[in-house]
Amino acid sequence: MRFGANYVPSSGWLYSWLDFSADDARRDFADLASLGLDHVRIFPIWPWIQPNRTLIRQRGIDDVLALIDVAAEFSLDVAVDLVQGHLSSFDFLPSWVLTHHRRSLFEDEAVRQGLAAYVSALSEAVATRPNVFAITLGNEVNNLWPSNPTSLEISRDWARELVGVVREKAPGVLALHSLYDDTWYAPDHPFHPADNVELGDLTLVHSWVFNGVSAIDGPLGGATVTHADYLVELAAATSPDPSRKVWLQEVGAPRPDVGADDAAPFTRGLLEAVGQNPALWGVTWWCSHDLDRSLADFPEREYDLGLFTVDHVAKPAAKELAAHVGARRTPPASRPALTCDVDLLRQPERRAEVAPGSAFHREWARLRAAGPVAIVTASRSGDPEYLKARGIHTVR
Amino acid sequence: MRFGANYVPSSGWLYSWLDFSADDARRDFADLASLGLDHVRIFPIWPWIQPNRTLIRQRGIDDVLALIDVAAEFSLDVAVDLVQGHLSSFDFLPSWVLTHHRRSLFEDEAVRQGLAAYVSALSEAVATRPNVFAITLGNEVNNLWPSNPTSLEISRDWARELVGVVREKAPGVLALHSLYDDTWYAPDHPFHPADNVELGDLTLVHSWVFNGVSAIDGPLGGATVTHADYLVELAAATSPDPSRKVWLQEVGAPRPDVGADDAAPFTRGLLEAVGQNPALWGVTWWCSHDLDRSLADFPEREYDLGLFTVDHVAKPAAKELAAHVGARRTPPASRPALTCDVDLLRQPERRAEVAPGSAFHREWARLRAAGPVAIVTASRSGDPEYLKARGIHTVR
Repeated sequence: MRFGANYVPSSGWLYSWLDFSADDARRDFADLASLGLDHVRIFPIWPWIQPNRTLIRQRGIDDVLALIDVAAEFSLDVAVDLVQGHLSSFDFLPSWVLTHHRRSLFEDEAVRQGLAAYVSALSEAVATRPNVFAITLGNEVNNLWPSNPTSLEISRDWARELVGVVREKAPGVLALHSLYDDTWYAPDHPFHPADNVELGDLTLVHSWVFNGVSAIDGPLGGATVTHADYLVELAAATSPDPSRKVWLQEVGAPRPDVGADDAAPFTRGLLEAVGQNPALWGVTWWCSHDLDRSLADFPEREYDLGLFTVDHVAKPAAKELAAHVGARRTPPASRPALTCDVDLLRQPERRAEVAPGSAFHREWARLRAAGPVAIVTASRSGDPEYLKARGIHTVR
Repeated sequence: MRFGANYVPSSGWLYSWLDFSADDARRDFADLASLGLDHVRIFPIWPWIQPNRTLIRQRGIDDVLALIDVAAEFSLDVAVDLVQGHLSSFDFLPSWVLTHHRRSLFEDEAVRQGLAAYVSALSEAVATRPNVFAITLGNEVNNLWPSNPTSLEISRDWARELVGVVREKAPGVLALHSLYDDTWYAPDHPFHPADNVELGDLTLVHSWVFNGVSAIDGPLGGATVTHADYLVELAAATSPDPSRKVWLQEVGAPRPDVGADDAAPFTRGLLEAVGQNPALWGVTWWCSHDLDRSLADFPEREYDLGLFTVDHVAKPAAKELAAHVGARRTPPASRPALTCDVDLLRQPERRAEVAPGSAFHREWARLRAAGPVAIVTASRSGDPEYLKARGIHTVR
């Protein structure tokens, strides 16, 4: 089981790439290493490295490599996200896809070629570092829609193409595709749930309780605390391959859904719940450090998501995470499963039926109060081999 | 009479700000100084200096100051444009005005406060350098519309506010407002022609013969070669103050309107024509250096506009410009004027009546073939004092 943090620099947020300081990164990574974490996920800013479609700045790449090397000093492995793209409500887009040059980065062929060149150059460069274990196309690229038009088919083709570039340029590194949870829950969303489980080497889920689940029984109610576990189960149930692992690549304790006093029990409860899931590959907390309040225009919740304050003081969630990292876990040998009528691989239009607050989700949460509950699609609920592979002993 | 060049770095275009090199700038400015030019106009990139509304990067400002100091080594004065914003078809916009944070930089109050902070910080910083003589709000900010909604009233208020910030923070430096020529010619354009003559310390005009004029008789016909002179006259005629000077802040020999073989005679003809204009403050050629063809997506014409190639070889226009700088000029003591029925100060909706190809423009160009011809609005055509101040001896 891997534990890490999404790296948000304590000084200057991701804007600090424009003034990269290895020493600042050292101070931040020392914080993370002190919790016993084994990895960080890092976020280069696309338009600053590729300001023109045919100009990829070597110094921009060098700064990314320098940060990776600083991580190695603290024995931290690194997952690199490439197309940012989207971060904490902001989209970073180069002038060559904006206004007078406006074109969809999913649809336009020249833009796709430019992105392939960027993904190729970065993948090849970061793969030279032994502590890089994963490359994600970009953080929640589905947030770049609707400003960039796309469709289910185009989104899939776009991601498949770029995953292929990563695999070619960074063999031996996990090639990954990250989407926020509208891909699971929003019926009309033009990013197919199948992409999560059929593209890339792991399934990624991002669990944010402000997506509606905290309105059910948050902050410490069962549905809220087990939402990460629910998403991991839903992902595992959707995957054609019963052994495919699921990385909880983002999870955090966002205010006001989770108040400051509730952060510790919320974090403890969610880690305990999701930690029992046999499909779980690892947990990467969002995020490493709070956001300096001198920076403007972020959603209020973004300022306090850090494991550490900007002054490097560990917050309650950090202590819970460190305790969990150090604890022995004995997941149950097997568990019961709830049958899901919706086949997300073939029925994306039915996504609302599994969203937070749906009858299915409420029933799962009710059963989950008594212990781990898997999800299984109706078509596979009678397949003993499949059920065994998923660690399921009975099906409801 | 001032002569200069709009500075486009020979290596990496304006993207080179991300990897600023004083030595590269030295090599480029040596080229420009060799022509006898006295100034350069420079273009910081706004979102790289102010990536967050409340974060203005000191290192970004320091790079601008370093470039100004390099210019001083070559006895070049510097005009600094602030909000880029728009350059050669590309708009550089920060994430805090895009997509999920989409808001008009003309209309939104928080964005305007952010811009005021940026203009304030840069103006104060560059005013510490004795060779900085002018600050323009931004290059052709009207190209930032329509992606940023505005109206005649809002555009004016926006510019007036920021010109006020420049005046306060950089006393003794020319405070200026730059717009491309739709402000003179396009009836529905939401930037008023009066803004050119009533805001800032000089009137700025940008003369580009691809605006329609070269279709009349380009590249070497009278209307085309005198278009810069026409714009200067139109600006002088529109100004309430008959002594207000007009800076031809951008002019060039764009292909394909002006072919490579015609660049020298076109340049010679336009400099001779506009050089006779008593309102002319100076001429700043667009641009210093060609664009490396390895950079993608620029309009074709942008690649060959340099006085110098990317390898520092002077092109024909450079030689014509240098010869003109060194020549003695004796403008005529006075000239006739053509009366214009359109009062651009009060009738922006009539702008098409003075645009290239309009009956008025064609008549002016016909008369201009015989020598300098002023423009005077009907309401002032009988005012002897005004006519004397403009150097006009007879009115048609």
